[in-house]
Formats: sequence, structure tokens, C-alpha cells
Amino acid sequence: MRNVKVAGIGLLRVKEYWDRSIQDLFTEASLKAIKDSGVESIDKVYVSNMGAALMQDQLNTAALMSDALGKPGLPATRVEAGSASGGVAFHEAVQAVASGYSDAVLVTGVEKMSDILPDVVTTALAMAEEQEYTAYTGVTKTGIAAMIHRLYLDLYAKPEEVGMMAEKSHEHAVGCKHAQYPFKMSIERAMSSPMEADPIHMMECSGVGDGAAALVLVPADDAGVEVAGSAVATDYMSIAQRPDPMAMNAISKAANKAYQMAGITAKKVSLAEVHDDFTINGILGIEGLGLAKVGEGAKLVSSEEVDNGGKIPINTFGGLKARGNPLGATGIYQVAEVALQLRGEAGDHQVEGAKYGVTQNAGGMASICAVNVLRRAKK
Amino acid sequence: MRNVKVAGIGLLRVKEYWDRSIQDLFTEASLKAIKDSGVESIDKVYVSNMGAALMQDQLNTAALMSDALGKPGLPATRVEAGSASGGVAFHEAVQAVASGYSDAVLVTGVEKMSDILPDVVTTALAMAEEQEYTAYTGVTKTGIAAMIHRLYLDLYAKPEEVGMMAEKSHEHAVGCKHAQYPFKMSIERAMSSPMEADPIHMMECSGVGDGAAALVLVPADDAGVEVAGSAVATDYMSIAQRPDPMAMNAISKAANKAYQMAGITAKKVSLAEVHDDFTINGILGIEGLGLAKVGEGAKLVSSEEVDNGGKIPINTFGGLKARGNPLGATGIYQVAEVALQLRGEAGDHQVEGAKYGVTQNAGGMASICAVNVLRRAKK
Repeated sequence: MRNVKVAGIGLLRVKEYWDRSIQDLFTEASLKAIKDSGVESIDKVYVSNMGAALMQDQLNTAALMSDALGKPGLPATRVEAGSASGGVAFHEAVQAVASGYSDAVLVTGVEKMSDILPDVVTTALAMAEEQEYTAYTGVTKTGIAAMIHRLYLDLYAKPEEVGMMAEKSHEHAVGCKHAQYPFKMSIERAMSSPMEADPIHMMECSGVGDGAAALVLVPADDAGVEVAGSAVATDYMSIAQRPDPMAMNAISKAANKAYQMAGITAKKVSLAEVHDDFTINGILGIEGLGLAKVGEGAKLVSSEEVDNGGKIPINTFGGLKARGNPLGATGIYQVAEVALQLRGEAGDHQVEGAKYGVTQNAGGMASICAVNVLRRAKK
Repeated sequence: MRNVKVAGIGLLRVKEYWDRSIQDLFTEASLKAIKDSGVESIDKVYVSNMGAALMQDQLNTAALMSDALGKPGLPATRVEAGSASGGVAFHEAVQAVASGYSDAVLVTGVEKMSDILPDVVTTALAMAEEQEYTAYTGVTKTGIAAMIHRLYLDLYAKPEEVGMMAEKSHEHAVGCKHAQYPFKMSIERAMSSPMEADPIHMMECSGVGDGAAALVLVPADDAGVEVAGSAVATDYMSIAQRPDPMAMNAISKAANKAYQMAGITAKKVSLAEVHDDFTINGILGIEGLGLAKVGEGAKLVSSEEVDNGGKIPINTFGGLKARGNPLGATGIYQVAEVALQLRGEAGDHQVEGAKYGVTQNAGGMASICAVNVLRRAKK
């Protein structure tokens, strides 16, 4: 198996692009990553997208995007895994290089949601749950998260401690050029915002946004940023089927496998990007990654340990809440952000001396999760 | 790079399953393949599906299907590439084993279309074209194929010669237990059927059907059926953008690369399964694979050379026209059929002495194409 490195990074700011097509977003991020990589020509394209079938009435996006990029002819694949599409697509792209089938792979996540009716977006999110058992009954993804959030409050933490996930993500987004909401938002503001689904306040939810993020992967050469571990795991679709509805086994399984590949434990992780589409999910991500014990994630997030300079900086560019959550692109943003950190190119967000960074990207109520571990190479 | 073999095959008959869910179809085919493989446990699941987002209101099918299979926890991925989803998913699954990331991969294609309104199916097919440039203007996939078909008739062949693709596929399906339409259909019947889009008659089009096909892939061991070559290529989405609208470059590019990996030329191919969703597309598939010169595919199909016992048997179980075309499952059916041939388990359909078999699976108007070459191992 060949080792793999991240050679190029291309990010668009997450925002509302009313004047751009989904192809435009894909192409701009991809060209940035290719230019950044210095690679003369890519030989494969992975497209990560969750909802174009609903939101753009578009399938076959692998061919569409390769064409838009001016590269008709290249091998191409579209990967979809709900809002874990990006992390899973990255995992597949790593395998393409690891296997020797490809030498320079572009993996780009893209999603365009702003110009779509809100109920279509809600429908798309619900489609990551089992349609006939869960989604059709009318419970939204927010509703499911709310049940888990309530249980967490009953067992482990105060509402403000969970809500701190949102304050911290916003605090870390300040000054981030690719963040949708690069400004502070206090826990008081979050707790006084309207209820989306009790106990989840509006300001504990990630928003709707458009974005594209791209990476170029090549064989490793002991320099730059290496892929140390990459794993995907699944779980029962419905939380009602799980032996313990609070146990996000897909997260912990993927994390354990990725750490094992990297030859590390959670203690060696320098920074993490977790999937905080809702505050509770960010907390469970932190716990699933082993960065806090079960039930202690909210307390960790309420401390300075997750800030830049702390023991374990989390969501260093704002996470899903403040950088933004363009579904199929989100997992690629996460890996790109960790790669920027390990390159030492994170600017005001730089975590000094970062060696290992981890990303956690979940789909459905963590019925699928990708965990990717990056490492700063020796040189 | 590790070599890969096909260890298990599971096929459902393509038909209308009004009493079964898409999970049921997936699970039954998958369990058949796992049982057939003798593998104790699989360690990764690939789901190939084109249209569940429209037809079942379902995304995140990788997690859904792993759960339905009784394997929550496994790494899983969904691949979509229009009606080439199956061939592309197979290609990705091969890389998972080749890279060493997985040792026993299940790749299952599934599609359920019968219980969906016909206009939704037509919409789904059109979504494999560029929505804003082609599909929105109102031209259907059949309409696009009709333009190419007309051009082919102007340049190369008589309508009956192209239509023979349908007669031959039906002839080869007789006795096939997994075929949707296992009966003969004469060229006269095809030519007297109503026009779908002039010059394409109804009986030159593949039908609507439900199905699932599954394969288990493991590292090769010089026995059984090996993956000799596997390649994917893309093309301009719109035929109007292509330098020559008749040149299906994605097919020929993928074929050339797959042959090169296999160390063969088209002359060494013992049998082929081509993507005859329309008769013209089957002909262009034959030409793209290099089994006939450009403009001579229709004449080849009109000869006995494509029959069992002929020089190059084509669509030995009935192809898309007669075995059936359950979109995301189709490419997996093709590979499974070639594998059955190379195992010597094709029953009345057996091509004696078959050593190399090739599959050609296209999405859109061949804006993406997967070509997979299988080889009978030495032992």
C-alpha cells in the first residue's frame, strides 16, 4: 500500500452564491487546489455531493464536474454518504492513490443550497435517515438530534455547557476568510435564540450555505502533510435500534481504526475538526474521537482547553456552526483545515507545533462516519 | 498493487417487485453473493444506486443497506454515476482490495423503479444529462439517443441492422433465470413497434425493472476469476460539445486502458456485455470496445459471430434489453455474467473456452463509462 499525502488545498468561502452555478463552485475550488499542489496534471476526480439530485435536479455529477473543469476524459466518481459524503469521498480518494490506480487525485466536495426552498433542504437532510421507518413519520434530523440532546442533558450536562460548542466554534471562526459566519456569538445569545426542536436552540444549529472545498492527493514523499489513517464505519440507521442510543459507535469505530493505522492514540492528537451540525453532535464527536470521556465532552468544550493554545484545539476555523456546513463539501473543508494547520499556514488560527490532526464527519445521526488522521511529515 | 478476484456472485431476477423494498432486494442479492463466496466475513460494502433520491426519497444508502444486511458497523460507500453506477462502483471496490484497505468487499447494485410513476423514471434518466443545458430544454435521454441513431443510419447502416441488437439480446436471454424478458423477439416485431423517438422504436429500448446484483471481491490467488483490467473514463456531457458527436470517447478510452492493464487487445476478448439501453448504444459500445470497426458494429450484430459459439459472443444473457436494465444494478449484472461465463457456470449460455470477458457500462450518453476486463485464472 502506498502512503498518501495532501499536496494541494483549495477553499471557497462558505456563503450564499446566488450568481454562481454548482459547476462554478466546483471548478473554482478545484483549480485553486490544483494550482496549490503544483501537480502538472491530475489523473482522477472524486466528486463529493449530497443533495444535487434534489437541489439541482442533477445526477451523474462526476462526469458533469470533470467536463466543467475542462477535463473531460478523466476517470471520475461521485461519492454520497449523506453529510459524511466529504469524509467518505476523501477516504475513497486515498485508496485510489494507495492502490496505485492513480497518481494525482482531485477530490472536491460541493453543495449549493441557498437558492433552494427551505423545505427541500429539510427534506434532503431527512433523507439521510431511513425513509420508510423514520423520515416518513415526520421527524426531522433536528428532531432526532433533539432527543439525544435531551438525554445528554438528563445524564451529563447543563444546557449552557452543550451550547458552549456554538460559542467556541464562532470564537474560533473570527478572521477566517473561508468562514460563513466569522464573528463571535455568545452562549447567552445561543440560549436566548428560538427553539428549533426543544432543547436545541436555533443558534445551536449549523446554517444553510453554499461552498466547495478541494484537495489534491499524491503518493507521500516524507514531506508535507501525510494521510496517517483513514477509516469509515456505519451504525444502525435509527437511534431507536441501537443498544444504547447515546453511543455513537460509528464515530468511535472509525476513530479507533484511523488511530490504529496512524499508530497513535487520541492523546497524540494536536487538533480536531468535529461535525457540530448541532451542538450536541459536536460534543458527541469529541467523545467519539476519545478526546473526552463519555459525558465529559460538554465540560471540555466549556474550558479553554479547546482554544488555540489549549491542550486540544477543536474546530480551529469555526466548525460547521461558524465556518459553515455545505453538506457534501463539509468533510473536505475539515480535512483541508487540518492540512493548513499541519503546513503551518493557518495564520491567526495556527496551532503551534501541531503534528497530528483529526477530522470527524458524520452522516445521518452518525449512522455513517469518516475519521481521517493527518500527520506533519518529517521533512 | 494487489490483484483482485471475484469470489462470490449473487443475482436476483430482474422483474417488478411490488411486494419488496429496495433494502430487501439489496439484502437478498448480497447474501447470495456472500454465501457463494464462502468468505466468512466481509469488511466493506459498496452500494451502487442511481435514483433512490428520487424514487425512494432516500439518501445515505451505504449506511442503510449495511444495516439492512445485518452488518451495521462496516465501512460503506455509495457510488453514483448515472446508469454507469454499477461499473464505476465495481472499479472502486477493486481499488479497495488492490490498495490493501479491504480484504473482502461486497459490491451490490440495486434499483427499484416499477412502483414509481413513469415520468419520475424519465426525469431520473434525464438527470444524467446536464440539467441547465440539456435536460431542462426538454430533450429526454431517448431523444438524445435518437439523434445519434439517425446519424448512424445516415452514415453506416440500415434501421434493421441496428435493430438486430434487440433481436440478438432477446435470443440470448432465452432460458436465463435472472432475465426480465427471457424470450425471443424478432427484428420484424421491433421494427413494427411504435416510435419512441424517431428512429428508435419502443422495442429497441430497454425497459423499466427492479433488480439487485452482488459480487464479493478478495485478493487474487491464481484460481477462479480475476480482475485483469478496470478503468473509468468521462467525456463532454453534451453530445453537442463533442468534436465528433458519434465518437464515444469515454467508451474507447476506458476500454483501451482496461485492455492495457490486462495486457491484451480487443482480439483476445472471448465475450462481451455491452450497454444496450438503446440498440444504437449497444452498437456504439461494441465499436468503442474495438470489437468492430467504426460503422461496422451493426453489421457484426446482424451476423452469427455475436452468438454463442461465434467469434465474439455479445450479451450472452440478454443484455440490458432482455436481461433488464435496473440502472444502478446493471453494471454489476454485467460483471456477474462475465464471471459466470469464466467460471464455466453459464449453463445453456456457456461460451466454451472463454478466457477473457469484458463489460461496458455507460452513464448519460456515454459521458461516463466503466470498462472491466475479467480473466479466467490459470488454476
